[in-house]
Amino acid sequence: MTDFAKTEKNNIKRLPKRGHYDRETIYSILDEALICHVGFVQAGQPYVIPINFARVGDTIVLHGAKASRLLKHIEAGNPVCVEVTIVDGLVLARSVFHHSVNYRSAVLFGTGRLVVDEQEKLAALEAVTEHLIPGRWKEARPPNQKELHATSVVSIRIDEASAKVRVGPAVDEEEDHALPVWAGVLSFQETPSIPIQDELQSEDVPLPGYIAHYSRRPTEERVP
Amino acid sequence: MTDFAKTEKNNIKRLPKRGHYDRETIYSILDEALICHVGFVQAGQPYVIPINFARVGDTIVLHGAKASRLLKHIEAGNPVCVEVTIVDGLVLARSVFHHSVNYRSAVLFGTGRLVVDEQEKLAALEAVTEHLIPGRWKEARPPNQKELHATSVVSIRIDEASAKVRVGPAVDEEEDHALPVWAGVLSFQETPSIPIQDELQSEDVPLPGYIAHYSRRPTEERVP
Repeated sequence: MTDFAKTEKNNIKRLPKRGHYDRETIYSILDEALICHVGFVQAGQPYVIPINFARVGDTIVLHGAKASRLLKHIEAGNPVCVEVTIVDGLVLARSVFHHSVNYRSAVLFGTGRLVVDEQEKLAALEAVTEHLIPGRWKEARPPNQKELHATSVVSIRIDEASAKVRVGPAVDEEEDHALPVWAGVLSFQETPSIPIQDELQSEDVPLPGYIAHYSRRPTEERVP
Repeated sequence: MTDFAKTEKNNIKRLPKRGHYDRETIYSILDEALICHVGFVQAGQPYVIPINFARVGDTIVLHGAKASRLLKHIEAGNPVCVEVTIVDGLVLARSVFHHSVNYRSAVLFGTGRLVVDEQEKLAALEAVTEHLIPGRWKEARPPNQKELHATSVVSIRIDEASAKVRVGPAVDEEEDHALPVWAGVLSFQETPSIPIQDELQSEDVPLPGYIAHYSRRPTEERVP
């Protein structure tokens, strides 16, 4: 996979050593993030809206109601910015100044189009469902014609992109090292609670394995 | 506290019953969220950048390096959009169409200014630190003049705002209720891992209680 070129838009100017331009890094962050934040401009005013998504190859797909203002704006080919961030933990330094957060973020730029082809639309809806809950698409009742008709899907080609990643311990000034202030890292994990079954459903319907063992981490990275 | 007025910018048009305009709801979401996503416009292009923040009264404060492009843009009085989202869980319906996410999001609009007054700047830095790690400010080594000089703080007045909240179970079509597809809610919690102390520090420095019992939820809501 080729890297994204550094451009005026995606170039990481602050702390450039945290910048990444390779698709592997950027796409792994996109695939792990639960939701994205879409930025767009109307009458000079910036808007940011959180929304479910999926990556399909070198595109981001979004879905929503046909009447959605956001989707209509993207369909029209206006520039959009898609951002995702995973916060991995807090970095506690001895000095206030060096406090930080361990995180992985990706920022993408592109323009979108309405997905018209029905097969492509279904594939995009499958991707969005599987992004949220891998294994779910085959099991749930598929969309019918009425539901498909009420839903718009847009596809945004990722033209420019970069990631920014901070990992590791606190970095304090050497003269602060002896201060009696606890320093270290407090990592976070998104932990699922016990699944709560719908009250209207018989307990005979078994809990699927993909819910019992739900994790945002790719399968190969999961701790058993 | 008065509610925000519904305007062209903050009015929730899609699923209006999920919309909230009262400060209590909006501010509680802001205060619990770890980071925010700032949208801005340069040469007609939307950008979205994740950043630490704090709410101070009816303003959002951000800090960063003096050279930060984002902060310079905000200092100049350009319109910004600040968005935060907390994902509370996955909503699994029997039909793909009715799958959803339980979430609490807030979207704010305003313009910023550079914080010049040193006391106000220190108070803003304290707020950002305490937003991330309540209890930390008093313990860590405070910023010195060199660090303060290298840091910019901007304050964004929240002129317009709204929140969007989804809670509760899946809502399926009645004719789907008997389908043998597990339906329910899988909630998430941001769970801290075991804190990892800096390798360069003596184990004699005790782990603070605010790290041992770290939680994003307000104190009164915490489960012991």
